[in-house]
Amino acid sequence: MTHVQLDSQQRLRHLITLDRLPAALLVKLLDRADALQAGFDAGTRKLDLLHGRTVVNLFFEPSTRTRTSFDLAAKRLGADVINFDIASSSTVKGESLVDTLHTLEAMRCDAFVVRHKENGTAEFLARNTRSKATVVNAGDGNNAHPTQGLLDVYTIRRHRPDLSALTVLVCGDILHSRVARSDIHALRTLGVGELRVCGPANLLPPESELPGCRVIEDFDEAIAGVDAVIMLRLQKERMSLALVPSEQAYYARYGLDARRLRLARPDCLVMHPGPINRDVEIASAVADGAQSRILEQVGNGVFVRMAVLAELLGV
Amino acid sequence: MTHVQLDSQQRLRHLITLDRLPAALLVKLLDRADALQAGFDAGTRKLDLLHGRTVVNLFFEPSTRTRTSFDLAAKRLGADVINFDIASSSTVKGESLVDTLHTLEAMRCDAFVVRHKENGTAEFLARNTRSKATVVNAGDGNNAHPTQGLLDVYTIRRHRPDLSALTVLVCGDILHSRVARSDIHALRTLGVGELRVCGPANLLPPESELPGCRVIEDFDEAIAGVDAVIMLRLQKERMSLALVPSEQAYYARYGLDARRLRLARPDCLVMHPGPINRDVEIASAVADGAQSRILEQVGNGVFVRMAVLAELLGV
Amino acid sequence: MTHVQLDSQQRLRHLITLDRLPAALLVKLLDRADALQAGFDAGTRKLDLLHGRTVVNLFFEPSTRTRTSFDLAAKRLGADVINFDIASSSTVKGESLVDTLHTLEAMRCDAFVVRHKENGTAEFLARNTRSKATVVNAGDGNNAHPTQGLLDVYTIRRHRPDLSALTVLVCGDILHSRVARSDIHALRTLGVGELRVCGPANLLPPESELPGCRVIEDFDEAIAGVDAVIMLRLQKERMSLALVPSEQAYYARYGLDARRLRLARPDCLVMHPGPINRDVEIASAVADGAQSRILEQVGNGVFVRMAVLAELLGV
Repeated sequence: MTHVQLDSQQRLRHLITLDRLPAALLVKLLDRADALQAGFDAGTRKLDLLHGRTVVNLFFEPSTRTRTSFDLAAKRLGADVINFDIASSSTVKGESLVDTLHTLEAMRCDAFVVRHKENGTAEFLARNTRSKATVVNAGDGNNAHPTQGLLDVYTIRRHRPDLSALTVLVCGDILHSRVARSDIHALRTLGVGELRVCGPANLLPPESELPGCRVIEDFDEAIAGVDAVIMLRLQKERMSLALVPSEQAYYARYGLDARRLRLARPDCLVMHPGPINRDVEIASAVADGAQSRILEQVGNGVFVRMAVLAELLGV
Repeated sequence: MTHVQLDSQQRLRHLITLDRLPAALLVKLLDRADALQAGFDAGTRKLDLLHGRTVVNLFFEPSTRTRTSFDLAAKRLGADVINFDIASSSTVKGESLVDTLHTLEAMRCDAFVVRHKENGTAEFLARNTRSKATVVNAGDGNNAHPTQGLLDVYTIRRHRPDLSALTVLVCGDILHSRVARSDIHALRTLGVGELRVCGPANLLPPESELPGCRVIEDFDEAIAGVDAVIMLRLQKERMSLALVPSEQAYYARYGLDARRLRLARPDCLVMHPGPINRDVEIASAVADGAQSRILEQVGNGVFVRMAVLAELLGV
Repeated sequence: MTHVQLDSQQRLRHLITLDRLPAALLVKLLDRADALQAGFDAGTRKLDLLHGRTVVNLFFEPSTRTRTSFDLAAKRLGADVINFDIASSSTVKGESLVDTLHTLEAMRCDAFVVRHKENGTAEFLARNTRSKATVVNAGDGNNAHPTQGLLDVYTIRRHRPDLSALTVLVCGDILHSRVARSDIHALRTLGVGELRVCGPANLLPPESELPGCRVIEDFDEAIAGVDAVIMLRLQKERMSLALVPSEQAYYARYGLDARRLRLARPDCLVMHPGPINRDVEIASAVADGAQSRILEQVGNGVFVRMAVLAELLGV
């Protein structure tokens, strides 16, 4: 995978997964996001780094936050944005995904932000680019969501700069979560102290897919003493029916409520990629509480995506 | 309501309704729209007052003219615009309206233009903002449509600067019309000479909801000698079935045709918020006739919305 | 028709069809596209010629490439673009097409790019404009697709500047093809040496509608020695059921495969307006082969549309 993502000078060519990306590259992206955020807060709300560039959002799954986040990121860098409406597109006329890519490349589009329910779609498109255009994976099946992984470590790093001293827990439906996979890659690459995962046995992948993670089935035990907990959305839409737990039973065993949060460190960061199912994965009061970083994650995502687009487009 | 809309210095914080807004504030907005229109006509088709700001159109009801009008207003002030497509949004994943608002605020969006079929939605969102973001009501149920009210008085004022000398008639389905309510608030606040409303008895609210209005059921009597007549759309989509009149019967009693128009003053302004039902509320020939200001209203709407957005965003 | 398209100084007022447009005007547009392409390749990826202008895409048929091409063309000239979503528009409320046009003109929109399945829609709108706004036909029924015709001759001219020395073949479902009609107009006006058309007898219009064309039913005979071949999409969606051929039978008689391509000149240009039906009109290997200019056409389309918009808006 890495050889699709990196060019011969080891610069980022596409962003498909965080798996096996060098730590230095992740740090560069996070530092750039920091600088962009500082600039924005100081009043530079819009740059012209991507003036004349075209970013295409190719979303084959519905999404509010991720599509809007990329849309804003591109516009705030000065790019033009094409939001490709899949339903009304020429796929109606039977054009294949690769033909669509080549068509948009021929029109001198510069970046493709792709979300698709099938694993591997973004990589497939990246391998099929014919121009200098870059592909950013905005989520493929349960495989990867690299900008979410980046924004999650970015959020943690802003509060706790020394990741090596931290214990982080990822909890919930790990099996169906591209977020969990990208979080794990990012946290391990950046040398997190201890990484725990927790979830129902039938919503956990085999341990071979969780390298470097300590798997703990009991939530109370898993959350004890952690510095940050990343709660995942229950992805019912990706589950076979037999796997779907009752919301009540799920919440009882894996919902983050105030009692459980007290088992973590007192300043434990509470995170969730959103959109949240209130009182299914997380108590409403905890989601809206003082330790919640959920909306901060959303805001950070725009700066992280600005950094990714700027880096990929070589400016 | 006013205390949601005005900040501690009595500046406009959100625009939810015209009800009880100070006359000076309305005049300020109308004057600013005048200045923007003069600039545009002199060749300044685009400004950068809102450069770096993001305006979100949150339309939960279909709309051509209002959404496009706000879209153009924001772009001509230099803002970036996010048109939030409700159908393909994360409401699919069960996110609530308030969570969507907070998500977009976290992304540093600056203004939310909201249309919703439920009364009170814009105010509800305004009360739930957590950032400095502003909410503009683009129509909520039958409650208010403040920018339409403003553009209607703006249109009248451009032709007849002294409102105190005028008699204005609002005619049609008053009961279901947010436009009527906002027109009445604007005209009364600005001191119109006489304000008449006319419509079928079962499409009129109780007189207590029409303060300062003279209710006249007979259209011929109501239109006699007026300076401006605002015809309303028959809002069948908001009526219970029992209320829906036959189009023919409605037109016979409440349709504005050439004969009736001759009962008004010779230079009477003919207005309608659009889209018109030709030969239901208004004769096609009158809608397209010399006295019609209907398309002028549409054009004025962009300048009025520019003034509102510029005012609300404090530039 | 010409008198709708040209103003009293014989300048382009609207672009509805290439039929009977003066050769000098076509040459001017092609030259301007050349200059824009040269500028883009030299790094001027965005201009501000249309700063402050608004281009409206009114697409009543689904389209990827044409809508996106116009969208990019307008944005790269600095215009604001309104993509008019037909499904969610006020046509829901029963507004007519002409009322929609007048509404958008009242909002000071400057150009309307129109696609519609009914022949004559763009001309109808052009005749009904009330402002200085211009209408560009982006495809009406089987009548005309003038920017496609322009980009096709533009593509040929970049490879073979002397059109008078060329033999060009248009092959396929001529009857339902607005592209074929516009190609024929452009090629004849610019004095192509020989113009051939080929297709199944029941998918050919009467010869009176193919002036200046040599009609050849046998594909092998038609392609012999040609300099360029324009393959058309089988427009099943516009055919009555009785006309729809089996894909296999169609490909056997009218599909462009490697064997047939060898009957043309060795450097014959292979063209197709897209989206292609692989192995129905054209062999996949030929579509992707060394002689294919299909993606080049797509890229050229953006520059041609930039030239058209700049010319129509008088800048």
